[in-house]
Amino acid sequence: MFTGLSAFPLTPFKNTSLTGECIDFRAFERLIKRLTDARVDSICAMGSTGLYSYLSLEQKRSVAKATVELAGDIPVMAGIGALRTADVLKNAQAMQQAGVKAVLLAPVSYHPLQEHEVYALYETVCNNLSVPLCVYENPGVTQFSFSDDLYQAVARLPNVAAVKIPGTPFVDESGSERLQTLRTLLPEGTAIGVSGDKFGTAGMAAGCDLWLSVVGGLFPKTVLRLISSVNANNSAEAQLKSQQLQGLWSLFVKNKGGMRVMATAAAILGICEGNCLPAPLQTLGKQDRTELEQLLKQLALD
Amino acid sequence: MFTGLSAFPLTPFKNTSLTGECIDFRAFERLIKRLTDARVDSICAMGSTGLYSYLSLEQKRSVAKATVELAGDIPVMAGIGALRTADVLKNAQAMQQAGVKAVLLAPVSYHPLQEHEVYALYETVCNNLSVPLCVYENPGVTQFSFSDDLYQAVARLPNVAAVKIPGTPFVDESGSERLQTLRTLLPEGTAIGVSGDKFGTAGMAAGCDLWLSVVGGLFPKTVLRLISSVNANNSAEAQLKSQQLQGLWSLFVKNKGGMRVMATAAAILGICEGNCLPAPLQTLGKQDRTELEQLLKQLALD
Repeated sequence: MFTGLSAFPLTPFKNTSLTGECIDFRAFERLIKRLTDARVDSICAMGSTGLYSYLSLEQKRSVAKATVELAGDIPVMAGIGALRTADVLKNAQAMQQAGVKAVLLAPVSYHPLQEHEVYALYETVCNNLSVPLCVYENPGVTQFSFSDDLYQAVARLPNVAAVKIPGTPFVDESGSERLQTLRTLLPEGTAIGVSGDKFGTAGMAAGCDLWLSVVGGLFPKTVLRLISSVNANNSAEAQLKSQQLQGLWSLFVKNKGGMRVMATAAAILGICEGNCLPAPLQTLGKQDRTELEQLLKQLALD
Repeated sequence: MFTGLSAFPLTPFKNTSLTGECIDFRAFERLIKRLTDARVDSICAMGSTGLYSYLSLEQKRSVAKATVELAGDIPVMAGIGALRTADVLKNAQAMQQAGVKAVLLAPVSYHPLQEHEVYALYETVCNNLSVPLCVYENPGVTQFSFSDDLYQAVARLPNVAAVKIPGTPFVDESGSERLQTLRTLLPEGTAIGVSGDKFGTAGMAAGCDLWLSVVGGLFPKTVLRLISSVNANNSAEAQLKSQQLQGLWSLFVKNKGGMRVMATAAAILGICEGNCLPAPLQTLGKQDRTELEQLLKQLALD
C-alpha cells in the first residue's frame, strides 16, 4: 500500500455549539467518496489533517471503522500518535480491530522528546503490532526531527514498512541526495514517502515511493494526474503543473499547513459545514477564504 | 495569591508496567509536604512540570482534590490546558469543583494556533469561570508566542488576574523594559509572573510580582531564600546565589526544560520511584543523573 497517492482526508466536525461539537460523519462519507471515485492508492484516516490528536479513543474507533467500510478495496492506514505510549498502544489496538492495513506514528509531544525516548516509543509500539507501520516525521507539529542514526535504528524495528519525510529538501537538487542517503540508511524495501504538498511532485520525480498528501485528501484527481505525469517521465510538465498551484502553497505557508485551507475548501465546496474544525481551530478568515474561492475557480482542482 | 513563590510540583508516576502506569499519590503527598512545610505562597498543581497534558480528566480531578486537601491554607492553582476548547472547559469545571483558587491556561496546540484562535479560546474560557485565571505563555511547549496586542486584549477579559511570561528577557536590562511595556499594556492590578527558573531571580529583582517555579516545586526553601534576598533589597546577593545554580540551569537547557531534571532529583532524594515519568518521557540518562547527584550534594538545595 506504500506507493502512489496516500490521501489524507480531513475529519470534519459539526459545530452546533461547543458542548455539542461532534464529528460530521455524513460529510466524512462525502470526503471518502471523492477518494474512492478517484481510485487513490490508499487512504490515511486521522493523519494530522485528519485531526487524530483532537479525537477521543472512541471517536478514533468510529472514524477508523467508517473509513474501512467506505474505502472498499482501497487499503486504509490510520494515525495512532498520542502523548503517552500507553495511549498509542490503545490506539493501535483499536485501529487494528477496525481493520486498518497499516498505522502511522509521529512522535507527538508536549515536552519535546529526546532521541532515546522516541526510539523507545517506536520499539514498544512496533513490538506490539500486527500490521505495517509508517514512521511519521513532521517537526512542524511534533517539535522533533529525526537524526539519520534514529532513522536507521527505528527502520530496523519489526513492522516498520515506510517513512514519511518532510518535503523541504526537494526544493532543489538536495532532495535527490537526501533520498539517496535515506536509501542507504534504511533496510531494502522500506518505502519512502514525501509529505508537504508543495514538494510532492518534486519528491516523486526524485524517486519517492509515495506521496502522502493533504491536497490529495480533497482533490485526489489533481494529485493523481501529477503522479501520472511523473510516472510517464514527464517530470518537467508535472513540476510546471505543481507550480501553477503556487497560490495554494502560499495559503498553506501563511496558515501554518494545509489543514485549515483544506477544511475551508471543503466548506466552500459544500462538502462540510462552514466551520468544520473543533475549537479553538478555525477555518480561514474572510480574506484568505475569498482568495481560496478564487483559486478554486481558477485552478479547477478535482 | 499571585505574589512570591508559586511552586510547580511534578505529578509523579509509578511505572510498574506500561499498562499499569499510574499516578504515585504517596510520592505526590511527600512532594506537597515539602511545599507546605516551607510555606510557599501558592502551589500550582498540573503545570507543565505537573504533566497536565498527559493526564485524563479523572486523573486531573484526583490530583486537584489531593492538592487542595494537602495544601491546607495555601492557595492552589491548577493547569486546565487542552487541545480542544471543549476539554479546557471540562478541565476548568473539574478544577473549580475540586476547590482550586485559580486556573492556569496555556494555548496548547498540535496544529500551531493563530492569534485570533487563541483570543477566542481565552474569551470562551474566561466567560465560563468563577475563579481568577493566569495566562500562560510558554512557547517551548505550545509553539505560540503572544503579541503585545494579544496580551492587551486577553488581559481585559473577565477573570484574567495574572500572566506568566517567559523569563528570557531578564537575561539583561531588556527584562526591565519588557516589564514596563507589559505594565502599560495590562490593566492595573494584573500580576506579572516570571517563569524559567534561570531568570527567576532577575525577574523578581526587576519587579515581577511572582515567580512561577519548577525548582521551587521540589526545593521551595532555596527559591524562597532567593526571593527574600530580592525583597530585602539584596538583589546582587540573590543574583550571585542564582548564578551558583548554573550547573542546574545547564542541565535544564540540555534536557529541554526542568521537568526531567526535577523528576530525576525527586527520584535521587527517594521521594519518587526511579522512573517517575509516564512513557515515552524518561528521567535523565546515567551521565546527567550522576552530574545531578553531585550538584545536589554541592548546592545543598532544600
